[in-house]
Amino acid sequence: MCELLAMSANVPTDIVFSFTGLAERGGRTGPHVDGWGITFYEGRGCRTFKDAKPSSDSEIAKLIKAYPIKSEVVVSHIRQANRGAVSLENTHPFVRELWGRYWTYAHNGQLSGYQEKLNSSRYQPVGDTDSEMAFCWILQQLTEKFGEGRPETMTPVFEYIASLAEQIRQLGVFNMLLTDGEYLMTFCSNNLCYITRRAPFGKAKLIDTDVVIDFNQETTPDDIVTVIATRPLTDNEQWHILQPGNWRLFRLGEVCAGS
Amino acid sequence: MCELLAMSANVPTDIVFSFTGLAERGGRTGPHVDGWGITFYEGRGCRTFKDAKPSSDSEIAKLIKAYPIKSEVVVSHIRQANRGAVSLENTHPFVRELWGRYWTYAHNGQLSGYQEKLNSSRYQPVGDTDSEMAFCWILQQLTEKFGEGRPETMTPVFEYIASLAEQIRQLGVFNMLLTDGEYLMTFCSNNLCYITRRAPFGKAKLIDTDVVIDFNQETTPDDIVTVIATRPLTDNEQWHILQPGNWRLFRLGEVCAGS
Repeated sequence: MCELLAMSANVPTDIVFSFTGLAERGGRTGPHVDGWGITFYEGRGCRTFKDAKPSSDSEIAKLIKAYPIKSEVVVSHIRQANRGAVSLENTHPFVRELWGRYWTYAHNGQLSGYQEKLNSSRYQPVGDTDSEMAFCWILQQLTEKFGEGRPETMTPVFEYIASLAEQIRQLGVFNMLLTDGEYLMTFCSNNLCYITRRAPFGKAKLIDTDVVIDFNQETTPDDIVTVIATRPLTDNEQWHILQPGNWRLFRLGEVCAGS
Repeated sequence: MCELLAMSANVPTDIVFSFTGLAERGGRTGPHVDGWGITFYEGRGCRTFKDAKPSSDSEIAKLIKAYPIKSEVVVSHIRQANRGAVSLENTHPFVRELWGRYWTYAHNGQLSGYQEKLNSSRYQPVGDTDSEMAFCWILQQLTEKFGEGRPETMTPVFEYIASLAEQIRQLGVFNMLLTDGEYLMTFCSNNLCYITRRAPFGKAKLIDTDVVIDFNQETTPDDIVTVIATRPLTDNEQWHILQPGNWRLFRLGEVCAGS
């Protein structure tokens, strides 16, 4: 399968610590060698770094681990291919524009019998993964339900996305990350967890490599930072484990909706 | 203004040499310090590296200069801001999906009185540049004229884009690069030139920094590589200078249409 990583924060924050743990799973402590990607939002803009090579052995991943990009929202993915060849066009995250925002999406899982159900025309997949088809289908449903303008209140939009994700989950495993750069949504099919860090900050120790960080040194007392991952990245903190069908919506580092 | 750089090749080719010349103009030999970006196509997939910092002083630009990514089509841009603040969402190139392909676009110039004329709903700008508005408007016109499916022959599509570009040129300066990953189009408003390199290959010397390359050592006899730039990047080769209103369409390194 794959592994997911995301962050929502109330101040621009770097994700070097968590990405360092995740990248190890792309070939060293995990089997996810079929590419990786990470999208950073800085204001309304975003940039995605991608590679079809294993993250544990990628020049670009080295840059990401060495060069802290401060961001309010991050979505990352390391891939173990099931549907679709190992290639750049099949590498997550996928980014599309809707309502004048960039929406970024990553999926962990595998779907069956999805071709007919997830067909769409306005947003068309470029690669040949089940994941990208599901993303295009969700965006098309949003334009059909909410029209061409960004709704003033976004919570109903994400509640509707949760109902779409529930439909997709009937086709297989569908753990999802989705953001418009302001809101970050996670939908759990079987494996997703999160942790919200705030003052008083402590130390955290990565599971996958011998790195410890003292967040007290890296933060201010007002910082609130949520990290979402397929499996916990640290072994000395308490992660919230989501149950199948659960979803959470985060904004500025905190839960603002979900079930 | 800004500077543009692009490449079309019949084999995956790296653009390190040309980008090294361009990046100097982003703060060292030129005034374009308000961000830069570069998009590489590898098959149908593409990846964009962007920074709102000057290219002459960017960690990510250093990676691009040191790490040769082989690509058939490349589009790059260094920015000197006129419309829109210095920020990631205003940094070119812009990428959107149409007909199941990623389309990448960059603009050099400045438009006036464009807000009403270039309005669009299906593709909406995320940033606040005249450039991105023009890109969204072009894509919307394409869906209105050609529908939801990719036309079998693409030359009429690019002929139509040239007619749209001619309309946009009435609003100001509009030098444009546009690609769907297979075709690369350039439209000249005042400054654009290109060179097609093929066997027998020779040496080339950058204008902006003291770098010489012997393409004979880097290529095979069948390689055909076209490089497009705002101003010539080398001073010992003959570049084709486009005239106002000229456009060219390249595929696999060679001109396939234009006027």
